[in-house]
Amino acid sequence: MISKATMSRLPEYLEYLRAVEKEGTVNISATSISKALGYGEVQVRKDLGSVSGTGRPRTGYVTSELKSQLESILCPQREIEAVIVGAGKLGRALLGYEGFAEYGISVNTAFDQNPEKRSVDISGSGKNVLHISEMCEYCRKNNVKIGIITVPASAAQTVCDMMIDCGIDAILNFAHVRLSVPDGVSVENENLALSLAMLAGCGGEK
Amino acid sequence: MISKATMSRLPEYLEYLRAVEKEGTVNISATSISKALGYGEVQVRKDLGSVSGTGRPRTGYVTSELKSQLESILCPQREIEAVIVGAGKLGRALLGYEGFAEYGISVNTAFDQNPEKRSVDISGSGKNVLHISEMCEYCRKNNVKIGIITVPASAAQTVCDMMIDCGIDAILNFAHVRLSVPDGVSVENENLALSLAMLAGCGGEK
Repeated sequence: MISKATMSRLPEYLEYLRAVEKEGTVNISATSISKALGYGEVQVRKDLGSVSGTGRPRTGYVTSELKSQLESILCPQREIEAVIVGAGKLGRALLGYEGFAEYGISVNTAFDQNPEKRSVDISGSGKNVLHISEMCEYCRKNNVKIGIITVPASAAQTVCDMMIDCGIDAILNFAHVRLSVPDGVSVENENLALSLAMLAGCGGEK
Repeated sequence: MISKATMSRLPEYLEYLRAVEKEGTVNISATSISKALGYGEVQVRKDLGSVSGTGRPRTGYVTSELKSQLESILCPQREIEAVIVGAGKLGRALLGYEGFAEYGISVNTAFDQNPEKRSVDISGSGKNVLHISEMCEYCRKNNVKIGIITVPASAAQTVCDMMIDCGIDAILNFAHVRLSVPDGVSVENENLALSLAMLAGCGGEK
């Protein structure tokens, strides 16, 4: 498995490889990539090593091969769709967030108990807020296996259970509460406050 | 330094200790905490060990002491304030996010080039959107050292430079771009898409 730190840099490598391939660069070395992007050479070698093994001596990597390998790891071909439950401020912000496409993930639909109230500022965007009762049908029809929870903590477990009933088996949880899930369901807790706290030096000196 | 994983659990320990202290519990063992919160005992011992050392045999920890130690690590006394630049959807969602208080951080103000347009849905909340030209004065007056960037990638470096000019030395960056900063300034990149991609199984099997 590729580390999260490496994964965070892959879109940048991919963008660079696509650019140099267009310019006709057939082979590319870790050294060139390192210089172009300003990352340390050791880090670039390690990142690419986990994606593609070591490049050949002198010539490095075949640009098109390395590009394909990055593309398949970043899974843009798989067209993964995720749904949001909770179309409050955070839910709507995520619905409008464009960074997901970089990893081949689309987020087109949020569900809420009160979709009319919530959908005002996204009208015309091609993104929808639907009533929570429509979630299961939508997930089955679109083969959605990933859910994002952006409801208040008090409602998160109920929403989590509903998602699992709808066939979702991977949950990104923004609510400040630990979720109980059966085996086979993964949960990742996104704690925005924690990132800020660590940055502020809480938890002791680095 | 305490790990991010441990830090993520400390607010829950603290909440529990405050509750049992009110009920008159003078001493508390890692075993009791583990049972009450549903975490493994080894994990609880490790977490508390990094905060407070090992508890005493039989009696465990003194509830009030452990509580104070957690409080000082979670730094609610320090009253850290952070500002946001970019009062679009994500910026406003963060401005309304209540989880920051758990780590003693307040986020009361966002800055934008067009504050009037941006402030509609937060009026009455006690939170403000001000014009970007007011940032330096605000940061100096309130001793703000932490900035959150929620502008589009194309504007992020400019905003980053402005923050540093205003005395900010720790930046949480939501824009999809790497920021160049001088020595002494820390940047943490928050990549929401990446969490979702890892959850979706991108990056290989776990």
